[in-house]
Amino acid sequence: MKGTPSDSILLRECQDNIEIVTLNNPAKLNALSNSMLLKLQNCFDEISLKKEIKTVIIRGNGKAFCAGHDLKEMMASKSDTDGGKVAMVDLFNRCSKMMQTIQMMPQPVIAQVNGLATAAGCQLVATCDMAVASEGSQFGVNGVNIGLFCSTPMVALTRNISKKHAFEMLTTGEFISALRAKELGLINRISNENELSAETLKLAKTVSQKLSAAVKIGKKAFYKQMEMPLEEAYKYTGEVMAENMGLSDTQEGINAFLEKRPPNWFNK
Amino acid sequence: MKGTPSDSILLRECQDNIEIVTLNNPAKLNALSNSMLLKLQNCFDEISLKKEIKTVIIRGNGKAFCAGHDLKEMMASKSDTDGGKVAMVDLFNRCSKMMQTIQMMPQPVIAQVNGLATAAGCQLVATCDMAVASEGSQFGVNGVNIGLFCSTPMVALTRNISKKHAFEMLTTGEFISALRAKELGLINRISNENELSAETLKLAKTVSQKLSAAVKIGKKAFYKQMEMPLEEAYKYTGEVMAENMGLSDTQEGINAFLEKRPPNWFNK
Amino acid sequence: MKGTPSDSILLRECQDNIEIVTLNNPAKLNALSNSMLLKLQNCFDEISLKKEIKTVIIRGNGKAFCAGHDLKEMMASKSDTDGGKVAMVDLFNRCSKMMQTIQMMPQPVIAQVNGLATAAGCQLVATCDMAVASEGSQFGVNGVNIGLFCSTPMVALTRNISKKHAFEMLTTGEFISALRAKELGLINRISNENELSAETLKLAKTVSQKLSAAVKIGKKAFYKQMEMPLEEAYKYTGEVMAENMGLSDTQEGINAFLEKRPPNWFNK
Repeated sequence: MKGTPSDSILLRECQDNIEIVTLNNPAKLNALSNSMLLKLQNCFDEISLKKEIKTVIIRGNGKAFCAGHDLKEMMASKSDTDGGKVAMVDLFNRCSKMMQTIQMMPQPVIAQVNGLATAAGCQLVATCDMAVASEGSQFGVNGVNIGLFCSTPMVALTRNISKKHAFEMLTTGEFISALRAKELGLINRISNENELSAETLKLAKTVSQKLSAAVKIGKKAFYKQMEMPLEEAYKYTGEVMAENMGLSDTQEGINAFLEKRPPNWFNK
Repeated sequence: MKGTPSDSILLRECQDNIEIVTLNNPAKLNALSNSMLLKLQNCFDEISLKKEIKTVIIRGNGKAFCAGHDLKEMMASKSDTDGGKVAMVDLFNRCSKMMQTIQMMPQPVIAQVNGLATAAGCQLVATCDMAVASEGSQFGVNGVNIGLFCSTPMVALTRNISKKHAFEMLTTGEFISALRAKELGLINRISNENELSAETLKLAKTVSQKLSAAVKIGKKAFYKQMEMPLEEAYKYTGEVMAENMGLSDTQEGINAFLEKRPPNWFNK
Repeated sequence: MKGTPSDSILLRECQDNIEIVTLNNPAKLNALSNSMLLKLQNCFDEISLKKEIKTVIIRGNGKAFCAGHDLKEMMASKSDTDGGKVAMVDLFNRCSKMMQTIQMMPQPVIAQVNGLATAAGCQLVATCDMAVASEGSQFGVNGVNIGLFCSTPMVALTRNISKKHAFEMLTTGEFISALRAKELGLINRISNENELSAETLKLAKTVSQKLSAAVKIGKKAFYKQMEMPLEEAYKYTGEVMAENMGLSDTQEGINAFLEKRPPNWFNK
């Protein structure tokens, strides 16, 4: 892992234009502490600018994928003169910004879930564009169990799964299995534990083979059009398609298809 | 059932801070008549103010959960000078208000479905935060069969299940089974008939164990953020989380968790 | 097929008030060429005005349902002075208008899918109010494979299936089976190939039995209320229900139901 000391809480590695980002604080179940949030934000900001990176995988070391916020750290700000109010709003804003950065990155981001994904950790799975999980993974938005309703995680959760299932998870605090998560639409694929990395890499490679410029245009439009009324969404995506058609590599892609040969892309 | 004559069309009973509301007009399949709507509205308005009530269950006596509007009563207003137009708009507004009150109540509301749930009765299931149904229950928005499209029920239905399935139910008037309703996301859990009350009570108790103030904050935010664009939803829920963190019982909940002991909540 | 030469690329036939529209360019996998789009637009505009047509079925001749845009034709506009930009925006706008016309038609429209449905062909399935597919049908938004992200198709796709599954289909370009399409909510029913026409006709007939005026009111409200916030949706559909109640045939429908006899509709 080049340039990153292995004792860092966030590791990065690049394989075949796929950036693998590893949460590496197993003792804290890869909690989204202030330093972890900062490192993730910087990491995603940097990756956003790197054209050579085609896809991103987020995974966790240890038995958890990510267990949400660092509660100990959160409680420390309670001694602030305002009882921690400002610090809390700031924390949730930084976390929400990091989550939204994942959606705004040009590269598709895949969560590789290897165990527990709870609270903001479950939000991270919901936020990623796609997710692959090991059979034994478990998903919960269980803040309600300690009296802190998972209100920011539910923003991502309710944009992935249907109303009643989201409400049940949020108010019972109960966990769901990988199988159930797949049924509900929270994850795309399930793998046995031994093949999890290979399965995720396979999905990432499939996406990496595509024309990056087209994927970038498409990912941006994906989230943008979803918040528009139908007519506006069609007007907008019509322009997006025309922009996409203007790329010389897209024209080469279409010509290659018509001529039944592989495309010869200049900037894949 | 304290203070309520058993011949009332709406019965109420409280068990361990769980309010059980029973539609009790089996001869009319628990239709949402004017008097039933009024009683439900008053009941929900009253429960909304009662902090000691943690969760609400709605169930029906007899073979139906609820068969929708009282058609006979509706037809009576046809002799009004305007052909019943004002009376109809008023009826649907009162019904929609009652449905929206369920979402606005601080307590989670669970539908316990013990048979037929049709038209506005199916809407009632869709509107509740969660639903448990007996194996033999059936769900339909079948107004189209008599020439009255279930337009208000579809508001709730299309916010629970996906587009094509909702369209099929609304235009064919066909019923779906409890199993199918669970697959589509219209209900959370299925139980055999004998254990339906126990299963629903179990779910209600799980939610009742949580810190009420957190559940109240969360339920309100749940529906509010769902209608916001992503960025606004995150800004709003960040403030909701900070408000939640400001509760002394939440701080106790977090401390108890960090100290690996049960929380000692002042106002559970 | 009355009045339509069998060598036309769009065939029309009417059976029991059900209009069957057949894409008939199997050599081009029923591509949405300029002429096909024009014929479909004219066809839907005409059907919209015909009260005697109760339901519409769209099917394709040959091994594909529809393979999306005509790429060869698209590439021809590249020699325009602006590189085809204006022609492309115009093409996507015409296609989007045709898709939106399907939603705005008073009659329910059912896709009868008999094979491949790719790119704008998959969008056509997603756009129809309902869909029945043969077991061997396959669905893909695979433009990404040639460098042209399916941005307009995703408008319809993301309004049918959940976020992560839509993203996976769009960025991997991989196809899904009819079984998976049913699980995800992209289609309503699956049939074996030999019974596909009969199964689709059965669904169409069920809908055709209903009071057309009620179905028309309901279909319009279905799509309109989905884009509204909850409170506005209820206010709007309350008025829609009252309008529906004002139809004399609806009153007959309700009376017939109360009197336990079949309705005697004047304008079914």
